[in-house]
Amino acid sequence: MLINHFGLALASPEGGKLLFTLFVMFVAAKLAAELFERLKQPAVAGEIIAGVLVGPSVLALVEPTELTGAMAEIGVIFLLFLVGLETKPADIFRVGGRAAIVAVLGVIVPFIAGYLIMDLWGATNIESIFVGAAMVATSVGITARVLGQMGLLSLEVSRIILGAAVIDDILGLIILAVVSSLASEGGINYIEIATTAGLAIGFTVLIILVGAKTVNRIQPSVERLKVGHPYLLFGLSLCLGLALMATWIKVAPIIGAFLAGMALSESAEKTDMPHQAEAVTEFFLPFFLVSIGMQVQLNVLFSREVFTLAVIVTVLAVLSKLIGCGIGAYSMGRKKAMQIGMGMVPRGEVGIVVAQIGLGLHAVSSQAFGVVLFMAVATTLIAPPFLVRLFRDEKRVDEEPVIPVSSIS
Amino acid sequence: MLINHFGLALASPEGGKLLFTLFVMFVAAKLAAELFERLKQPAVAGEIIAGVLVGPSVLALVEPTELTGAMAEIGVIFLLFLVGLETKPADIFRVGGRAAIVAVLGVIVPFIAGYLIMDLWGATNIESIFVGAAMVATSVGITARVLGQMGLLSLEVSRIILGAAVIDDILGLIILAVVSSLASEGGINYIEIATTAGLAIGFTVLIILVGAKTVNRIQPSVERLKVGHPYLLFGLSLCLGLALMATWIKVAPIIGAFLAGMALSESAEKTDMPHQAEAVTEFFLPFFLVSIGMQVQLNVLFSREVFTLAVIVTVLAVLSKLIGCGIGAYSMGRKKAMQIGMGMVPRGEVGIVVAQIGLGLHAVSSQAFGVVLFMAVATTLIAPPFLVRLFRDEKRVDEEPVIPVSSIS
Repeated sequence: MLINHFGLALASPEGGKLLFTLFVMFVAAKLAAELFERLKQPAVAGEIIAGVLVGPSVLALVEPTELTGAMAEIGVIFLLFLVGLETKPADIFRVGGRAAIVAVLGVIVPFIAGYLIMDLWGATNIESIFVGAAMVATSVGITARVLGQMGLLSLEVSRIILGAAVIDDILGLIILAVVSSLASEGGINYIEIATTAGLAIGFTVLIILVGAKTVNRIQPSVERLKVGHPYLLFGLSLCLGLALMATWIKVAPIIGAFLAGMALSESAEKTDMPHQAEAVTEFFLPFFLVSIGMQVQLNVLFSREVFTLAVIVTVLAVLSKLIGCGIGAYSMGRKKAMQIGMGMVPRGEVGIVVAQIGLGLHAVSSQAFGVVLFMAVATTLIAPPFLVRLFRDEKRVDEEPVIPVSSIS
Repeated sequence: MLINHFGLALASPEGGKLLFTLFVMFVAAKLAAELFERLKQPAVAGEIIAGVLVGPSVLALVEPTELTGAMAEIGVIFLLFLVGLETKPADIFRVGGRAAIVAVLGVIVPFIAGYLIMDLWGATNIESIFVGAAMVATSVGITARVLGQMGLLSLEVSRIILGAAVIDDILGLIILAVVSSLASEGGINYIEIATTAGLAIGFTVLIILVGAKTVNRIQPSVERLKVGHPYLLFGLSLCLGLALMATWIKVAPIIGAFLAGMALSESAEKTDMPHQAEAVTEFFLPFFLVSIGMQVQLNVLFSREVFTLAVIVTVLAVLSKLIGCGIGAYSMGRKKAMQIGMGMVPRGEVGIVVAQIGLGLHAVSSQAFGVVLFMAVATTLIAPPFLVRLFRDEKRVDEEPVIPVSSIS
């Protein structure tokens, strides 16, 4: 029935279940964040662990559903939008060359590492390729959150990480297209892959080049709108719109959201919109972090052999990014190379998606899938404390909000 | 599979569909709001009509799903939380007696009107009772949004409307319990109904009496939290928590959210939390309004007889609230009585829920259900322009935000 999902939820057990899920996820995340802050550990890690605790593996209070998935997705989309708001296109251009080298080496080394370890373990060729591909894509949300909370998003290394993450996502997309066509058609469909790559690169470059100019031209019209909070509504619409367009050309929606934020970064400075967008993100983001933790399926790892492999793959996932991205940034000095490498370590949701597609194509076994899942969650947990340590001596450089977002904090 | 809903959404057609739904609902709502503002019509009505247009009846771009229902529910919950933040417990106490009379008469008259018209139409006794019950409950969100946008929430009549809506919801709950037990058990289970009523009244009175004091006592601890935006997180947690508790005792979650806002109304004044909560609400609210419009099922009304009945029921729904609530407030003068009566006209989601339960119990036919659906949407559309007209001469009384929420608007 059409209206099933609307009114009924408001006064029914279903409505209670929905609110229970939201309440548990939100409060668990924030209690854990508070505890971790007090222990001088990254709040992000606390929120992910909160997800492990309330999720199916431990307390089983909540489980991943379409709704929690959607809340998580909106959360990471708004997070990258917010990061984009603090990033001017020129900032990215300036570090573009370096970011490209970091991204390319940070893709090649983990891919080879993943392929070789699976090959040694006795996996099929296509399964090894899929696990290698799953080790490629950085999930930049975690690093962006940690650096944002430390007020370090305007550092040159932070911008290299962001730029490299965008390029990395496009490279990951191309690799995924290649391995998918290998698995489903047995060969490589060059035309399709060239189209995919061309669209993704074209979209990104186009928005970076003309996005800000277009937004600046539209701004006077936005100011003349009669609807309340015009700039917030314009910003959120642009964010959702470019995230949607990104999915059409098969890039991750967070790339579209990041580009939308970047296009607005100049004109938004004069408004309160970034602070309003920050409030919206504060509500959504815990669902993203808790959802990562909720993915943990301890039962897949019961076999000692699989667990050992998962640990080895995780160690390789960390080292291969550190080495690959580190070499790309080595001319900046050892410390900055380490900062950039560690910033690219979290794999999060993208690796899971790649492995899941492999599972769907019967190219990846459920053990290998469990290994990727473990690696994806573990890398998001490992990176934050090291990031905090590596960036400990940097001074806050991000502009403080002109209008205090909370007069208490 | 457990992770189905998480990662996959980020880079898949499903993710695209989710973003498409969010984008269409949000942008359609805000374009319609802008158009209606320019035509000097209430934005709320525009956003509901946007829902009719993009919904299954006309363009069929989007359809109600679990996700849109959840977004709508969160939207109206945060709206009532925001309204609560502008309402001090003492404000409600002062108008409590009058609000009670308005609520009781505003329940009795529509119930009788609904019962009689269905009886005349030849409906069964139980069906007439259900339609009568569906005509009882005011959906206060629409009125609150209109008055909030006009800056009139602090008026005495606005407070009577809010107080009466809370009482009205509790009375509606009791009536629903009575008619449900009539339909499913053929008689009235007095003990169960007394328990239901007692819990609902006890919950409401308890939070009004001790909520604010408890919050004021907790506030110093909230200020000492190390997590970012502590007061926003505390406010949103309390809102979700009391909304959840409300569902446990079967009251509408918006009552819990309103009470949470009221408990925080004093201590929040010193913080930026209300503006942050407003930003969050601005994102969610369009989904509530568009979802109302998306409920419209034009096909149910194809028969001329059913359509005529729907129009008559709608007219009665408007008149009976105007008369019932108007009599309750008549000693305040004709104009205020009309303002209060019109403020109680929108039925929205609560009437739909009642009719839906009747449908589930086979006590309500699909025609009668279609009639209630039409009445619920039509009353939410009819009330706003009349409200704007009736309140046209009042001066803004709500405090302007201390910190401008948007420096542009």
